[in-house]
Amino acid sequence: MSTPQPFALNCPLPIADYPHILMAHGGGGRLTQQLIDRVFRPAFKSAGLDQEHDGAVLEVGGQRIAFSTDSYVVKPLFFPGGDIGTLAINGTVNDLAMCGARPRWISAGFILEEGLPMETLVRVVTSMKQAAEQAGVQLVTGDTKVVDKGKGDGLFVNTAGIGVLEYPVTIGPRQVQLGDVILISGDLGRHGMAIMSAREGLEFDGAIESDCAPLAAPVMDLLKVGIQVHCLRDLTRGGLASALNEVATSAQLAMEVDETAIPVREEVQGACEILGLDPLYVANEGRMAVWVAAADAERALHVLRAHPQTAGACAIGQVITGSGGMVTRKSRIGARRILDLLSGEQLPRIC
Amino acid sequence: MSTPQPFALNCPLPIADYPHILMAHGGGGRLTQQLIDRVFRPAFKSAGLDQEHDGAVLEVGGQRIAFSTDSYVVKPLFFPGGDIGTLAINGTVNDLAMCGARPRWISAGFILEEGLPMETLVRVVTSMKQAAEQAGVQLVTGDTKVVDKGKGDGLFVNTAGIGVLEYPVTIGPRQVQLGDVILISGDLGRHGMAIMSAREGLEFDGAIESDCAPLAAPVMDLLKVGIQVHCLRDLTRGGLASALNEVATSAQLAMEVDETAIPVREEVQGACEILGLDPLYVANEGRMAVWVAAADAERALHVLRAHPQTAGACAIGQVITGSGGMVTRKSRIGARRILDLLSGEQLPRIC
Repeated sequence: MSTPQPFALNCPLPIADYPHILMAHGGGGRLTQQLIDRVFRPAFKSAGLDQEHDGAVLEVGGQRIAFSTDSYVVKPLFFPGGDIGTLAINGTVNDLAMCGARPRWISAGFILEEGLPMETLVRVVTSMKQAAEQAGVQLVTGDTKVVDKGKGDGLFVNTAGIGVLEYPVTIGPRQVQLGDVILISGDLGRHGMAIMSAREGLEFDGAIESDCAPLAAPVMDLLKVGIQVHCLRDLTRGGLASALNEVATSAQLAMEVDETAIPVREEVQGACEILGLDPLYVANEGRMAVWVAAADAERALHVLRAHPQTAGACAIGQVITGSGGMVTRKSRIGARRILDLLSGEQLPRIC
Repeated sequence: MSTPQPFALNCPLPIADYPHILMAHGGGGRLTQQLIDRVFRPAFKSAGLDQEHDGAVLEVGGQRIAFSTDSYVVKPLFFPGGDIGTLAINGTVNDLAMCGARPRWISAGFILEEGLPMETLVRVVTSMKQAAEQAGVQLVTGDTKVVDKGKGDGLFVNTAGIGVLEYPVTIGPRQVQLGDVILISGDLGRHGMAIMSAREGLEFDGAIESDCAPLAAPVMDLLKVGIQVHCLRDLTRGGLASALNEVATSAQLAMEVDETAIPVREEVQGACEILGLDPLYVANEGRMAVWVAAADAERALHVLRAHPQTAGACAIGQVITGSGGMVTRKSRIGARRILDLLSGEQLPRIC
């Protein structure tokens, strides 16, 4: 993806070459994009990467499949509402679902630090087993490596996944059309704030649990009833704001969201205010945005609301006429501001 | 795989439960097996894992595909004959080839340590690009995470891969038959000793370069000409000895290899002697064992020798009558000794 820079004031930090990796290169914002654009994409030019999506869609024996991978380095390993194991399964399940695929098979690669309590590993593996059962995927192949004490951080997991596209649809940023309605599948910011509270030992009013959940079932239902889904994007690192920016840039279309329509739980809003964070940039692990033909929006909401993990679905905005790649937020009082890609990172090691 | 323990004397270390992860759990020997048997296999019981092979064979749209993953934590990142990037591509390419599949698509997940020189990342990515081109695979999807300084070790890479089974064959440990001839594709021990020399700054007589190479082309040729390949196994962590033990255990057959038939370069043999290592346990990255019907052995050698990366192929032993899972080595003077699975590790972080 090319990083759009239509507004000089957009960019509080100079975009320059960094001679070393910074935490922000993993934050899902502008520096992550720069790393992808300048290091990975030139080296690995392929049709798969050019889809600019959460996974690659490939063809095998006349059948389209989706293929995706993610590594998980979340800190701490266990947090309210989940752990690195649930993340590792649901994250890859959701990346496949965002391609319109039914997730089927998962691989798992473990990098263990010498000295990790065996009990910790067993807990994580047990979570993965349960999450895989819940999401209807099979873990079919794996690998384990051990690194010296002090050269890892307990446990890192990589999962890759294969899904099958059962419906004759093409879903991706380039399918988004002017007039599409933007839905989200529920309230925002819970995963990020659950991690923060666990990591920093913060106590907020009311416990905040991660929203980590598999999204394949509601996605399959949207496709099954023939809703014209143009794009799907899970709202992980960088949150809703980053997802909107990425999709707007790939689609070369403008988008506007109505701040008042975006559900954020009171305790999450409160915690964000204390920490000076904007919930639109906070990571989620069981939330997605859906770009859908305007005529299908109501029906799509109806389908989503029938599933517990997407029961809070709502329409938050639309694809509008305007500069390609530009995303605006309309505030409570009707003011419009640009909702930009973050330059740095908000919360490191969130997933 | 159940760990066979037919001989009490086999096991110099007590096989017990370890409350913490040891380096040896990643060494490819008995403790790795124990981790797989006691932690991973019970949790992730599936047809794919039950194949006890380098990858899982799955079916999509009537077409069989192979799916495999490996994480790479080799230390140092660069060594004579390759680097973590060449390993990460060739390792997964070879795992797919060992299933009899033509490797097609690769995913890459990077875990970067804060402070990693950008130049190092670019060198590794460039190696991956070249290795992918050489092996005829496309890198189609990826992910990058960054961990805090002191919580990683420069750079870890995970790759997963998908290959297509173009020939109607089933290749795996359970296909091995009594009388099968065991071939290896070239001299042993170079990768392990190249890593040791780079890591410890040792200088041996003559430079030792890793044998890291893709094995898909010779495997495809074996299948193309209709050779009855029963099993393929790359000789990575734990070397030839571990591969023979794993396959013998899964196949529940006995195997014998002739020490004098196993090629080991003089400088590798010398380095192993200095360090007290047995080259049959040292890791390779471009070597495989092939179990083939006796009638096809000569023809298979002819096919392998036509490829530069398998030009040194030779027959080293046979599947014989005897206790299931037992592997013996016949020495220069005709003495027979058991070639057992290592309890611990020989060389940590070899791949």
